[in-house]
Amino acid sequence: MSPFLLNILKLFSEKIMSQTTTYQEPLVSRYTSPEMQYLFSAEKKFTTWRKCWVALAEAQYELGLTDIVTPEMIAELKANVNNIDYDIAAQKEKEIRHDVMAHVYEYGLKCPTAAGIIHLGATSQFVVCNTDLIVQREGLLLAKKALLQVISNMAEFCDEHKDLATLGFTHYQPAQPTTVGKRNTLILQDLVMDLNYLDFLLDNIKARGAKGTVGTQATFLDLFKGDHAKVRALDELVAKKLGFSSTFDVTGQTYTRKHDMKLAETLAGIGSTAHKFAVDLRLLSNLKVQEEPFAKNQTGSSAMAYKRNPMRSERMTGLARKLMNLPQNFAATYANQWFERTLDDSAIRRMDIPQCFLLTDAILKLFINISSDMVVFPKQIEKHLRAELPFMSTEKILMEAVEKGENRQDMHELIKEHSLAAGKVVKEEGLDNDLLNRLAEDDRIPFDLDSLLAMITDYTQFTGRASAQTTDYLTEVINPLLQKNSEYMGEIDSSLSV
Amino acid sequence: MSPFLLNILKLFSEKIMSQTTTYQEPLVSRYTSPEMQYLFSAEKKFTTWRKCWVALAEAQYELGLTDIVTPEMIAELKANVNNIDYDIAAQKEKEIRHDVMAHVYEYGLKCPTAAGIIHLGATSQFVVCNTDLIVQREGLLLAKKALLQVISNMAEFCDEHKDLATLGFTHYQPAQPTTVGKRNTLILQDLVMDLNYLDFLLDNIKARGAKGTVGTQATFLDLFKGDHAKVRALDELVAKKLGFSSTFDVTGQTYTRKHDMKLAETLAGIGSTAHKFAVDLRLLSNLKVQEEPFAKNQTGSSAMAYKRNPMRSERMTGLARKLMNLPQNFAATYANQWFERTLDDSAIRRMDIPQCFLLTDAILKLFINISSDMVVFPKQIEKHLRAELPFMSTEKILMEAVEKGENRQDMHELIKEHSLAAGKVVKEEGLDNDLLNRLAEDDRIPFDLDSLLAMITDYTQFTGRASAQTTDYLTEVINPLLQKNSEYMGEIDSSLSV
Amino acid sequence: MSPFLLNILKLFSEKIMSQTTTYQEPLVSRYTSPEMQYLFSAEKKFTTWRKCWVALAEAQYELGLTDIVTPEMIAELKANVNNIDYDIAAQKEKEIRHDVMAHVYEYGLKCPTAAGIIHLGATSQFVVCNTDLIVQREGLLLAKKALLQVISNMAEFCDEHKDLATLGFTHYQPAQPTTVGKRNTLILQDLVMDLNYLDFLLDNIKARGAKGTVGTQATFLDLFKGDHAKVRALDELVAKKLGFSSTFDVTGQTYTRKHDMKLAETLAGIGSTAHKFAVDLRLLSNLKVQEEPFAKNQTGSSAMAYKRNPMRSERMTGLARKLMNLPQNFAATYANQWFERTLDDSAIRRMDIPQCFLLTDAILKLFINISSDMVVFPKQIEKHLRAELPFMSTEKILMEAVEKGENRQDMHELIKEHSLAAGKVVKEEGLDNDLLNRLAEDDRIPFDLDSLLAMITDYTQFTGRASAQTTDYLTEVINPLLQKNSEYMGEIDSSLSV
Amino acid sequence: MSPFLLNILKLFSEKIMSQTTTYQEPLVSRYTSPEMQYLFSAEKKFTTWRKCWVALAEAQYELGLTDIVTPEMIAELKANVNNIDYDIAAQKEKEIRHDVMAHVYEYGLKCPTAAGIIHLGATSQFVVCNTDLIVQREGLLLAKKALLQVISNMAEFCDEHKDLATLGFTHYQPAQPTTVGKRNTLILQDLVMDLNYLDFLLDNIKARGAKGTVGTQATFLDLFKGDHAKVRALDELVAKKLGFSSTFDVTGQTYTRKHDMKLAETLAGIGSTAHKFAVDLRLLSNLKVQEEPFAKNQTGSSAMAYKRNPMRSERMTGLARKLMNLPQNFAATYANQWFERTLDDSAIRRMDIPQCFLLTDAILKLFINISSDMVVFPKQIEKHLRAELPFMSTEKILMEAVEKGENRQDMHELIKEHSLAAGKVVKEEGLDNDLLNRLAEDDRIPFDLDSLLAMITDYTQFTGRASAQTTDYLTEVINPLLQKNSEYMGEIDSSLSV
Repeated sequence: MSPFLLNILKLFSEKIMSQTTTYQEPLVSRYTSPEMQYLFSAEKKFTTWRKCWVALAEAQYELGLTDIVTPEMIAELKANVNNIDYDIAAQKEKEIRHDVMAHVYEYGLKCPTAAGIIHLGATSQFVVCNTDLIVQREGLLLAKKALLQVISNMAEFCDEHKDLATLGFTHYQPAQPTTVGKRNTLILQDLVMDLNYLDFLLDNIKARGAKGTVGTQATFLDLFKGDHAKVRALDELVAKKLGFSSTFDVTGQTYTRKHDMKLAETLAGIGSTAHKFAVDLRLLSNLKVQEEPFAKNQTGSSAMAYKRNPMRSERMTGLARKLMNLPQNFAATYANQWFERTLDDSAIRRMDIPQCFLLTDAILKLFINISSDMVVFPKQIEKHLRAELPFMSTEKILMEAVEKGENRQDMHELIKEHSLAAGKVVKEEGLDNDLLNRLAEDDRIPFDLDSLLAMITDYTQFTGRASAQTTDYLTEVINPLLQKNSEYMGEIDSSLSV
Repeated sequence: MSPFLLNILKLFSEKIMSQTTTYQEPLVSRYTSPEMQYLFSAEKKFTTWRKCWVALAEAQYELGLTDIVTPEMIAELKANVNNIDYDIAAQKEKEIRHDVMAHVYEYGLKCPTAAGIIHLGATSQFVVCNTDLIVQREGLLLAKKALLQVISNMAEFCDEHKDLATLGFTHYQPAQPTTVGKRNTLILQDLVMDLNYLDFLLDNIKARGAKGTVGTQATFLDLFKGDHAKVRALDELVAKKLGFSSTFDVTGQTYTRKHDMKLAETLAGIGSTAHKFAVDLRLLSNLKVQEEPFAKNQTGSSAMAYKRNPMRSERMTGLARKLMNLPQNFAATYANQWFERTLDDSAIRRMDIPQCFLLTDAILKLFINISSDMVVFPKQIEKHLRAELPFMSTEKILMEAVEKGENRQDMHELIKEHSLAAGKVVKEEGLDNDLLNRLAEDDRIPFDLDSLLAMITDYTQFTGRASAQTTDYLTEVINPLLQKNSEYMGEIDSSLSV
Repeated sequence: MSPFLLNILKLFSEKIMSQTTTYQEPLVSRYTSPEMQYLFSAEKKFTTWRKCWVALAEAQYELGLTDIVTPEMIAELKANVNNIDYDIAAQKEKEIRHDVMAHVYEYGLKCPTAAGIIHLGATSQFVVCNTDLIVQREGLLLAKKALLQVISNMAEFCDEHKDLATLGFTHYQPAQPTTVGKRNTLILQDLVMDLNYLDFLLDNIKARGAKGTVGTQATFLDLFKGDHAKVRALDELVAKKLGFSSTFDVTGQTYTRKHDMKLAETLAGIGSTAHKFAVDLRLLSNLKVQEEPFAKNQTGSSAMAYKRNPMRSERMTGLARKLMNLPQNFAATYANQWFERTLDDSAIRRMDIPQCFLLTDAILKLFINISSDMVVFPKQIEKHLRAELPFMSTEKILMEAVEKGENRQDMHELIKEHSLAAGKVVKEEGLDNDLLNRLAEDDRIPFDLDSLLAMITDYTQFTGRASAQTTDYLTEVINPLLQKNSEYMGEIDSSLSV
Repeated sequence: MSPFLLNILKLFSEKIMSQTTTYQEPLVSRYTSPEMQYLFSAEKKFTTWRKCWVALAEAQYELGLTDIVTPEMIAELKANVNNIDYDIAAQKEKEIRHDVMAHVYEYGLKCPTAAGIIHLGATSQFVVCNTDLIVQREGLLLAKKALLQVISNMAEFCDEHKDLATLGFTHYQPAQPTTVGKRNTLILQDLVMDLNYLDFLLDNIKARGAKGTVGTQATFLDLFKGDHAKVRALDELVAKKLGFSSTFDVTGQTYTRKHDMKLAETLAGIGSTAHKFAVDLRLLSNLKVQEEPFAKNQTGSSAMAYKRNPMRSERMTGLARKLMNLPQNFAATYANQWFERTLDDSAIRRMDIPQCFLLTDAILKLFINISSDMVVFPKQIEKHLRAELPFMSTEKILMEAVEKGENRQDMHELIKEHSLAAGKVVKEEGLDNDLLNRLAEDDRIPFDLDSLLAMITDYTQFTGRASAQTTDYLTEVINPLLQKNSEYMGEIDSSLSV
């Protein structure tokens, strides 16, 4: 083999070897979509920087700096947006320790005509902040798409099981029956709240625009020879070219980090809903009444083939826990920025903004995966319900006894006494609930076993408006919402790699 | 003295003694307004419970349960909303360990006619959740009022100082001049973001309505003999009577705790802005250029009479730090609620919801106090600015030299060299910045000292659009906003007790 | 009644009335012990300040300042440690806005001879920091006492149930049997870790000593006319008199806030163990196999008399959640202290140090209460175990079949197939686990039902060393630990008021 | 080029391309040491798994399972510890979705003789937990080494500047002089506290040992035919072979996650000290009195060549902020583990344990870098000090005046009045402190300007025991500590790549 080839192979080997000898962030290697990963890649960042520079040059030209910026320069800049030599840029950065200037330099190499006007009048944060905001907007739209899919899946699930009576729990103790569909409208409503906050953020996301070193637009005012109107127009025009309808009214060197705090809170909101959902599902899985879908070729461990570990819900729980804790960092970063900007925001945002989005992505992917094919076991649900129904029907039995002329207070005492005894039998003797038998056998109570059983045969009577609420909610809230957002929806690959 | 009086005095003494022998929450004893404290008092809670019961009875009557609920009962209930004997209720609670039932009992004592229909068909959370939401809404309105006052104060401050040039800092190193007014528009903009989120929350706050034990409205459906329409109407009518335009579409036993999470985040947003503001002010105070107002009779310690410790800003910083950390608790509580409700939300909400509001109240009170009378020292500002201006003017000197025909690269090198030397003189010799002298003395540079000084005489030239941005922002954003919200504004007592 | 009496009654009424019209911190009014509350009372604080002043005067006298400090003065100071007129002090504080100086003044009124030497050479933080540390030490000892009681209770529980086989869960899915005692040694071991950290903290807690305004002891060096040895001795002697074996080697104005951070982490450790324990107990309560003690006169709601809501565990969960989040505040406060001290530590410490201790107190009180009388239902445990044992015994059946000469791979496939089918029957048909019947009926498997049942009759065989581990752990770790700490143990009132 | 080569190149290209099109964790690509990165690499993990399997086989052999485990097998296992084909393992994992079993398989391919006894009697967590603990121990030792270097650097710095008087600040307002060395002993003492906690953790870190699926050692008890003593011995022997002096006494499926919580807190402690140090340095940098070292070839931006942005301290601040927030996640994970283990710990630990260590590594690297060559500007320090000294000397002037026979109260009032006037001159007129002139000109005050100046000439008189404390602390605490730990120290590369 030629020495040249050998050298290339050696170089490649080293780069690849390093994948087993250094830490690999598991969010990337395991849990997230290529679309979201790409948003935080070098390529996305640096090509977006170039788009910012193109927008700036165009806007400067359009607003009259035609003696400095020419159509040829703009054309050259546009033609080279994706033409980046990363090694040259990296080399330059090492030398001058300034990433933006290194890329201005590399861009300039590709654009000899325009070299002198790249970044004209701008400060580093012109490309950095605007790119951050563009990436965030795209990330929010990806999250929105996935969130809508979860809402759609859950709505379908609610509709399908709106009439399926199940034990409602308070204190994780059986309380009163509800239905499987109704219970899940609670999650649905929380997801809609998440979506509302996400939309509120999307509605309010702005460009950083063209503001200068400390936000005074001084260099641009010089460029436009003191013409304030043109400098304002430049700010707005650049924003528009980058796809924003407005810019932050005022900035320091960067846009306000309060925005980041709100961003993190919005995404953490999604995490918290996923957490509640996943914990409930893990409990249901223990009760053997509801499960996450189980992959065809997936088996439990060989010794315990039957086991159905709710691993996706567990993973979702852990990822959500991390996501829910990230807003703290953003709050502290914002609250400790001094004056026009301090750089203690840099390293932490570099880690935490991607983490927020990647965690959201991983969580929603899991959420779609689970919600698309949840398994429900109606017979088990009924079994649990029947074991507790006698207790839950005591109010009804009491009322009917009173209607038959019995004394309410006496009946209440009797029923209570038998209830406690039946509860004791279940717990202390490990036997089935025998409350109805006890009541039937007590002569003071005016019902035989058949009458008592009849009272609870149709247990849907205990579920009140659960089914109707579900239908109302889907019809009046969810369906219109999905329709309104149909343009944001689309295919999502929710297959899990590990 | 009569034994009776002695006994009363003894009892009173014990109750008051306990104020020195048990822990007193400092938020109450030191920092907050009586209005906000009252919202979280026993009286507010229990009278609001009664208002919920009145609303329920009225709605039931209006929707046709006229055979059960009568106008007399309603009148009696209304007449006794404020007529509470707390000792009886406390005694009853101790006995049956159920606060709601204890108050149903005590209310019943006062309303013998209506006793049987108090709380009819309802579950404890009917009064608890609805009252929580009513209190929150009123707390948010108090916060909004105070927030608007801060915005108004800061707007006035920005306007007054919009032209006052000052050092802009990045990395807390002098960067480029801005103006005092412009700098403070950054805080103003953040406060407006806080207000937007507060308004978004207020727009979306809903009643819990009449939903039943696990949210199925089963008991109400029984009461209305299966008439779904009436049960829906009941839910909405109760909400309306309690001042809400809508209710949560679906609930478990309680309204979704995600709402609490959003509540806490919204208030923490205010805290974070206050934190940034306070830290900046503490730094400015060290620079002796800007200060919080200093009370007439306030002196520093006797030995250091001249000292002006920024104690209010420091307190604000600490209170804000605590407030900013509270959303975590709400997120964890929400995310760990199991099914229709678990009670691990109870003790923590009982502490943290008041804490959120009281901290916000204390912070805004401080913020109003400080912003209403901040002290600025223009001469000190100018002194700092003049010490750094030579450095900041190098770009301008370079440009003018080039216009005079000098070689840009040569000039750049010369100026850089002298800049570094001058920087050294300042730090290493503790002397004043002598850059202009150095440049004037260098024959290669085509300016004498007078020319150089002339270039920086009018240093407002370096502040770009700072003043104009301030005016634009106040005119286009703040003034309309204050006008639109004038109904929410009013007198606020921001005097500090300690 | 005399106008004088009327006035007193009016004053008293106002003070008491305020208890219903302002916020009352629920930690105090509901959950904590009087001992812990007292530690954070005004009386504790101000009498301890006086003890610090006594210690200082004594030490100054003993180290030779006999011309300034006299035995009479010391005697007078000692005699008035508890003789505080809070109203005078409060009045003075309002006037001069300085709490320490206000109490110097009030103490001086009571000690006319010593008035001039109270606080001699000291700065406010001399009393404030030293008092904080004394209170913390006493609070830690109270926590230690309670923690030891929990450990003792849990040890007894483990011992009692060390042989009681129960389902072990992973993923909250039945995994392999363990025993009730063994499971609870896990909590025991965590409690011991908490105790170790608590002891480590107690071993390292130090006085702030006598250090001066910025920690340089300048005023004391003046007092002792430049005698360094005496100033060092003063620092140590004061500490010794206040019960500490050492002082912080160096301080700024205050002792390092890193200590507070470690304090909060140590207490939060206890909270986290309580949280894990309480969540497990709430799950066990749902399974009806283990319960918190149920008060004699406690009933569930009237309609659901049988219900056993695990309210104490739920409360413990919520309180622990709050406690676990507090270290964040201390970390942020420490990390943002500037130079010798900034006052942003004041308000937040004033709230959060009491909260840490009061939450710990409330949690440990609940923990003692629950662990002293936990209810176990062996029959229910057995029922759950028997339902899953067939699955868990497949490994054993496989081995025995192989010993009988069957082919391992064939047997494995057969058993797996029947396992999956049996699992399906349970979930999809809501019936009992029929795996053993299926195996018995399959001719390819060389066992009849009786043989299969025999294999699982003695299910303790599946619990491995669970019981032995429990005994070992109790014998080798817990018992020696309790013995070693017997002096720290004592009666604790763990009755709950609400 | 041959098709084979082309294919390889294509494959390599894809792998490398992905480095620009997916997210790269900046902790790895920018801030951390190869040693720490390696600890969290695939190679470290999987070779350590194999060492666990070797230890298990050896221990089983030594404890008598010689009929199952042979010396040949052990030799084979040992020979192949580093002989891993990652692609085969990855392929197998994809198939069976079980990483441990995939590696058992791949190891078995390399060890045909031993294949059957790899992982004998063990559960996945045998290798996973023990490896985690081994990696943590090594990570802690790396952190300890770096921490000791920081302590050593800071000690040298303290010693060098122990006599250099400087303004001490409280409220970030000049309070009393201290010395540069003394101030930095505060950080030193905090670092020692961090080291103490780190050592405490290292002293208490244990192996997970050989415990089985739910911690009962059931399978091992079977293997050793009921011999409890041998199973205990196995647990301990394996631990010893892995370098631990003890094992956790009891475990569930995993070791207790409380340990992780303590681990995170310990490392966060280091972060918090770094945060305080870095913030102070950033403030000092603004005051132009102290700076982080400035790289030779590093320049500020071209327009502001003189600028010395404290970028390393700013980065340290941000990284520390993130590190300080991570313990929350571990607390929540631990507190929400159900029974013997739930898997919601997996994804979050996989991210957060590396993050804790990598952040600590990055922070300590920065800390070493900065502390090894900090720049101090004595002249600037003196300038600041002289500007404030007149205020600080008022106490001394007062005392000397009283000694001269003046009335204390009169003098106090006069001095206070002039102090306030002088303070006003500085702030309101931007002029220098003229207090001494004012006092000299006031005939009521018995000193002329020379006498007054003389009083403050030797300003070291105001620094009390600052220098002596520094010497004491270095001599009595730091030097012995460094000596005691000399074996843990060594060369550390603290050069920064970006």
